[in-house]
Amino acid sequence: MKNTPPKLDKHVRLAHGNGGRYMRELIDALFATRLGANGLDTSVDAAPVDVPQGVRLMMTTDGFTVDPLEFPGGNIGSLAIHGTVNDLAVAGAVPMYLTLNAFIEEGTEIKLLERIVDALAAAAQEAGVKIVAGDTKVLARGECGGVYLATTGLGAIPHDLALGQQTVQPGDRIIVSGSVGDHGTAVLLAREEYGLRGDLKSDSASVLPITEMLLKRPGLRFMRDPTRGGLATVALDLARETGLSIALAEEAIPLSEPVSAVCELLGYDPLYLACEGRVVAVIAADQADDAVAELRLSGVAPDAAVIGTVGDAPGPVMLTTGLGGQRLIDELEDDPLPRIC
Amino acid sequence: MKNTPPKLDKHVRLAHGNGGRYMRELIDALFATRLGANGLDTSVDAAPVDVPQGVRLMMTTDGFTVDPLEFPGGNIGSLAIHGTVNDLAVAGAVPMYLTLNAFIEEGTEIKLLERIVDALAAAAQEAGVKIVAGDTKVLARGECGGVYLATTGLGAIPHDLALGQQTVQPGDRIIVSGSVGDHGTAVLLAREEYGLRGDLKSDSASVLPITEMLLKRPGLRFMRDPTRGGLATVALDLARETGLSIALAEEAIPLSEPVSAVCELLGYDPLYLACEGRVVAVIAADQADDAVAELRLSGVAPDAAVIGTVGDAPGPVMLTTGLGGQRLIDELEDDPLPRIC
Repeated sequence: MKNTPPKLDKHVRLAHGNGGRYMRELIDALFATRLGANGLDTSVDAAPVDVPQGVRLMMTTDGFTVDPLEFPGGNIGSLAIHGTVNDLAVAGAVPMYLTLNAFIEEGTEIKLLERIVDALAAAAQEAGVKIVAGDTKVLARGECGGVYLATTGLGAIPHDLALGQQTVQPGDRIIVSGSVGDHGTAVLLAREEYGLRGDLKSDSASVLPITEMLLKRPGLRFMRDPTRGGLATVALDLARETGLSIALAEEAIPLSEPVSAVCELLGYDPLYLACEGRVVAVIAADQADDAVAELRLSGVAPDAAVIGTVGDAPGPVMLTTGLGGQRLIDELEDDPLPRIC
Repeated sequence: MKNTPPKLDKHVRLAHGNGGRYMRELIDALFATRLGANGLDTSVDAAPVDVPQGVRLMMTTDGFTVDPLEFPGGNIGSLAIHGTVNDLAVAGAVPMYLTLNAFIEEGTEIKLLERIVDALAAAAQEAGVKIVAGDTKVLARGECGGVYLATTGLGAIPHDLALGQQTVQPGDRIIVSGSVGDHGTAVLLAREEYGLRGDLKSDSASVLPITEMLLKRPGLRFMRDPTRGGLATVALDLARETGLSIALAEEAIPLSEPVSAVCELLGYDPLYLACEGRVVAVIAADQADDAVAELRLSGVAPDAAVIGTVGDAPGPVMLTTGLGGQRLIDELEDDPLPRIC
């Protein structure tokens, strides 16, 4: 396929990015029709957005380069919505508006793009966000690994919401909303270079139902979604920013059977692998068990668990292993899993 | 350079994108220090933005893939600010907040990135916008043409501002704020594949001083910046959206001597080449001459000119040539200039 010229109607051409007729047709056929119901008006350069009075606005942005573009549990389109929606959700915000950038390699199949945009539209619909503006660039063959996306989100929080690492107190508990490492492992397996197959699925999803439930609790201090760098990196950030040690209990951390098996086989530590639909939260000790029980029983996060405690003095992130030993959690250095999100 | 491993301190490594220590160091050294004064807080996933009461918010987004990354008159960093600032400016908005996505190829020189981020910071400062959030992805060598950027902007317009193609009336005049095709031609020459050299410079700049001056005139109908597809594409959009013909006068369209010479030599039509610091405006006939005189005499746009008239019935975009002939302006089809912006 790489050596034959693409057909106009089946593959993206360079001319689809030149600002002229082909580009207008691509935008109309691909984006305007599939995202029009979602609020996209492709005839304007800047789109008006209405925001309610009396709220504080939040902005966030994220880029997506996942390889392969489609994986069990989603594709780069749904991932691009979940990533940005979740960054707003863990900040305590209600996501309202998104913009979308697409960098597309010449020769990319139009059918593939259609599946990506369809997944993106469905994920946006489910999360209740409108895609109000977009831009597309086409890169020459060999100059871009297929498709990269970027999404930027605008959301609103109540003026009196005070979440953040600075509110964390000694003795607070650490919660995770579900099993860790599912997304990273699912993408690794989807690459097929390992010759492994399994029923692993990415956890890519909007975490809004989880954050909405947690936000009702007065003892909630801080939330983050453990994407690149995984749960370990969130814990290390927390220890650094709060100046307090963190104790994690390995046996309490939810881990699916196939993730555990694949990580053992390939030598990855699931604590460092990306999740795309989980929340790590810090909450007052007297609220933690109730919060987890509510998440589990409501079905919003059936595998939620209390996994650790914030210490009362500066110190490292220590993991108590299943055998009762202590393992120091180090910052991720030179073991990259590129293009995982 | 492509065959020797990059030194840690001089080139970007894959580990700079993995979410761990290298990534934090790259973000801190490259973005946080250079954009900190501009408002960027790299420790949060979503950033609060304050907006004034009683305005309407506008969002826009744009991707940048210019090749080469540096060209006479700017680089991809300054271009990424100007592109998004200008999309808001021509919508009549005051740009306030921007977010930034960077897709960086492994092996990219850190010094080059520093120049790009410095130009970006300076352009943001000059346009009065704050960069409030960002994201960086690192792609393996060969998977990305150096550096791609995306910027998303949030701006505000007064509630009573009614600009748009739907307000255009027969007899309205068309203005351009300066010479056309400078950016496209400057980037073409910077590629050096043509062996041409000249003193051509991109017109990449914030158009805010121009739009602010035009917005004071009650007869202003519509503004757009003629980027990809150039002046011709803006005129064609206008004819299609208004359902009215457009008459342009070739001799009135400002064109620099070197752009004219290069286009003649290489067979490009400057009407289709990108500008990155110009405004095309539609304004009531009785305001057009005064508006142009003010733009010229104030020094804001010394080469501004009235270049055409909106017709009173559906029809094409026709160019009256210097010899008095008529040329139909067609939609750009299969003559792409990829990676011009």
